[in-house]
Amino acid sequence: MLFHVRMNVNLPPSMPQEEAAQLKKTEKELAQRLQSEGKWRHLWRIAGQYANVSIFDVESVDELHALLTSLPLFPYMQIEVMPLCRHPSSIRNNDR
Amino acid sequence: MLFHVRMNVNLPPSMPQEEAAQLKKTEKELAQRLQSEGKWRHLWRIAGQYANVSIFDVESVDELHALLTSLPLFPYMQIEVMPLCRHPSSIRNNDR
Amino acid sequence: MLFHVRMNVNLPPSMPQEEAAQLKKTEKELAQRLQSEGKWRHLWRIAGQYANVSIFDVESVDELHALLTSLPLFPYMQIEVMPLCRHPSSIRNNDR
Amino acid sequence: MLFHVRMNVNLPPSMPQEEAAQLKKTEKELAQRLQSEGKWRHLWRIAGQYANVSIFDVESVDELHALLTSLPLFPYMQIEVMPLCRHPSSIRNNDR
Amino acid sequence: MLFHVRMNVNLPPSMPQEEAAQLKKTEKELAQRLQSEGKWRHLWRIAGQYANVSIFDVESVDELHALLTSLPLFPYMQIEVMPLCRHPSSIRNNDR
Amino acid sequence: MLFHVRMNVNLPPSMPQEEAAQLKKTEKELAQRLQSEGKWRHLWRIAGQYANVSIFDVESVDELHALLTSLPLFPYMQIEVMPLCRHPSSIRNNDR
Amino acid sequence: MLFHVRMNVNLPPSMPQEEAAQLKKTEKELAQRLQSEGKWRHLWRIAGQYANVSIFDVESVDELHALLTSLPLFPYMQIEVMPLCRHPSSIRNNDR
Amino acid sequence: MLFHVRMNVNLPPSMPQEEAAQLKKTEKELAQRLQSEGKWRHLWRIAGQYANVSIFDVESVDELHALLTSLPLFPYMQIEVMPLCRHPSSIRNNDR
Amino acid sequence: MLFHVRMNVNLPPSMPQEEAAQLKKTEKELAQRLQSEGKWRHLWRIAGQYANVSIFDVESVDELHALLTSLPLFPYMQIEVMPLCRHPSSIRNNDR
Amino acid sequence: MLFHVRMNVNLPPSMPQEEAAQLKKTEKELAQRLQSEGKWRHLWRIAGQYANVSIFDVESVDELHALLTSLPLFPYMQIEVMPLCRHPSSIRNNDR
Repeated sequence: MLFHVRMNVNLPPSMPQEEAAQLKKTEKELAQRLQSEGKWRHLWRIAGQYANVSIFDVESVDELHALLTSLPLFPYMQIEVMPLCRHPSSIRNNDR
Repeated sequence: MLFHVRMNVNLPPSMPQEEAAQLKKTEKELAQRLQSEGKWRHLWRIAGQYANVSIFDVESVDELHALLTSLPLFPYMQIEVMPLCRHPSSIRNNDR
Repeated sequence: MLFHVRMNVNLPPSMPQEEAAQLKKTEKELAQRLQSEGKWRHLWRIAGQYANVSIFDVESVDELHALLTSLPLFPYMQIEVMPLCRHPSSIRNNDR
Repeated sequence: MLFHVRMNVNLPPSMPQEEAAQLKKTEKELAQRLQSEGKWRHLWRIAGQYANVSIFDVESVDELHALLTSLPLFPYMQIEVMPLCRHPSSIRNNDR
Repeated sequence: MLFHVRMNVNLPPSMPQEEAAQLKKTEKELAQRLQSEGKWRHLWRIAGQYANVSIFDVESVDELHALLTSLPLFPYMQIEVMPLCRHPSSIRNNDR
Repeated sequence: MLFHVRMNVNLPPSMPQEEAAQLKKTEKELAQRLQSEGKWRHLWRIAGQYANVSIFDVESVDELHALLTSLPLFPYMQIEVMPLCRHPSSIRNNDR
Repeated sequence: MLFHVRMNVNLPPSMPQEEAAQLKKTEKELAQRLQSEGKWRHLWRIAGQYANVSIFDVESVDELHALLTSLPLFPYMQIEVMPLCRHPSSIRNNDR
Repeated sequence: MLFHVRMNVNLPPSMPQEEAAQLKKTEKELAQRLQSEGKWRHLWRIAGQYANVSIFDVESVDELHALLTSLPLFPYMQIEVMPLCRHPSSIRNNDR
Repeated sequence: MLFHVRMNVNLPPSMPQEEAAQLKKTEKELAQRLQSEGKWRHLWRIAGQYANVSIFDVESVDELHALLTSLPLFPYMQIEVMPLCRHPSSIRNNDR
Repeated sequence: MLFHVRMNVNLPPSMPQEEAAQLKKTEKELAQRLQSEGKWRHLWRIAGQYANVSIFDVESVDELHALLTSLPLFPYMQIEVMPLCRHPSSIRNNDR
């Protein structure tokens, strides 16, 4: 099942740089692991913003929520989720 | 270059069914041709709405505009475009 | 899987009464069939509006979309879908 | 009487972890007691957000307000309340 | 129980004057009957708009919905409902 | 002259409890004096929110502004004012 | 008493030109009479829009509402009213 | 003086094609004349929309308004105007 | 040239009272000087809010910007500017 | 390729003046270098706001993102990006 997820990140400017860097490091590691497992199918940066659009491929909504809330940056994120389904005009066989 | 495009379609309920069906038919043909040419990379239906989220892969903004305005349903669409770029954490080599 | 669906209905005042009545009749029949099948778990009227909040219980997003777009009133609806998951504090065993 | 209540929780990231954990613990205890008493009928997590949609079943608006403002997390919540009533197409006898 | 109800009326300018006048006449009669019965406690005009703010005093949400949807102008209205409760600083004994 | 006033109160969670309690105490005293003087005609709590809807009865806009800005909680309030006038269908003689 | 009034005019493009011209003519006559009577104190065009910002000087809210609803273009207007009062830093003696 | 003007065009789909074509033709002629006169300094298409962002260079606000309202497509436009001034970091000598 | 300027002031509640008083004092002095010079033509308080609507009369947009950014309270303000022009129905000769 | 970029800057009032001045200095130097390189084609101040509208001329979206995120003030900015393309009525040969 595919979900369209938009994430806007707002780190408080007052946060010490090392803390921010550490957060981003662990975030990147987790994001890359989830991508390699096929859960996090697409991850694009929205130009000009500290925000991304992602496509998640999960078995259930619970799994999606567990993944999103496990992200180190989750407490600093505004997240919007849209469920996607196969478009009748799509020719891609796995863009379920 | 990738662009995130959201299209909401509002066909007037008063439109005769054949006219609507014909519009959708030509729209589908064009959408599938553009997908096969690699221009229209992803096309997903937003659950519960006559709307889609698409990812276009084009050489320029002009090309993107030409493609979108050539869609038969364009006069009945509300379109929002967001330029995307490669995310530093993406492991996909072609999600530029 | 549970989805929170809000439906706002806007029938054009110019629509003949019989046509509107017929639409509502077939809408009610389908809604009640889907409820008896367990797909349409809850259906509440929002006080003061021609709108409802519903909870759907489906196997996939595609199934949700198919059900919603099959509603006779779909062309006259504004629909918003929010995926739900089990709340850690919920004591209901089937409010998955 | 049923009320649809959406709660968005915004705990300041600067809040000490123990304080946050304690707040959540007492919140959970109260939420589960109210559910067992039948006041808090449904409690669902909105996927991807620190927010929930709930259905309250109370005798009066005053009672609803008293319950909501008694929640430990109330000072950190944005709450929207929508009164619900029985939908003419509902087949559930107790979804008043 | 008190409910704050805002009603914005949008009659299509193309509606024949007699039809509009007749609608307003029956609307006024019903509104005045409901006021005399104590259901429609307050009815104020919002300056500069074809809109009103009202306070309804009803036994249940269902009753509120039945009253609002019975208004002749209902199909041409945008309605927002907010449940009210007694304010701890209110000195009026019946502003429940 | 009647004015519809909505007040949303946002006390910073970091404010010491005694300071907040003192503010609320003086706010309540002033609110009750103004009600007894007939200036503050109605004061209702919006269910689920630290907010109220009030109806003020004043001689002038200047008087309204002076009253509102004299409230101890004013610095922590978001206020919206709507001028009201007598509704042609109102049967209450003093709901000017 | 002064009121800030913003008026956005939306004449349906399908309206016959003579009808529109006649409406604008009577609107202008009334607007100029009210200005000469001192009721309509200021009338400015918002650049680029069929809209104006006006300052009305009236004895009561009822009078304001009567004036606004008497405008020939009223049925085609979106109107927002903000009550104004004397600013403590104003040096104009009649900008009450 | 420079003004940033955004124009969204909404031609009713029901408008006959010749009428629309004629409107666009005269619009283009006027736009190109104003550009050659230096009034309409920049005119860009917003990708994916029947809308443009323009920079006007005029002597006064009145002149700007006269130009905009003289556009054949004006009745079908939503226009937002933002006054611009020279940016302290700009190195262009004529981007006043 | 006339500009409609709305200023909403948000002083942080944590600001020491003397600092706030000093800021307001210098703001008032500058505002009154600019009014006496004819630059700041009208200054009204929006009832119930720490906000004003003003009409500025300046030679250019640059001058407007310089005046606004020179205000001591500027760092704490949200400002919206709308260019105004003479209304064809205005009878005031200097409401350019 | 041209992109329309709106930047709103929100420096926390609590930031020490020297730190703010230093940030602005390095921002100005970078902005002027990018303008001289032709990347940052236009930079205008929005009157009355600490915000600008800019037109960037870049080879790709990635380049745009790299430039914007390299700005010293980026952490304090809200940025919106709109892709532009040549308008069919534009007479400027390089306003691609």
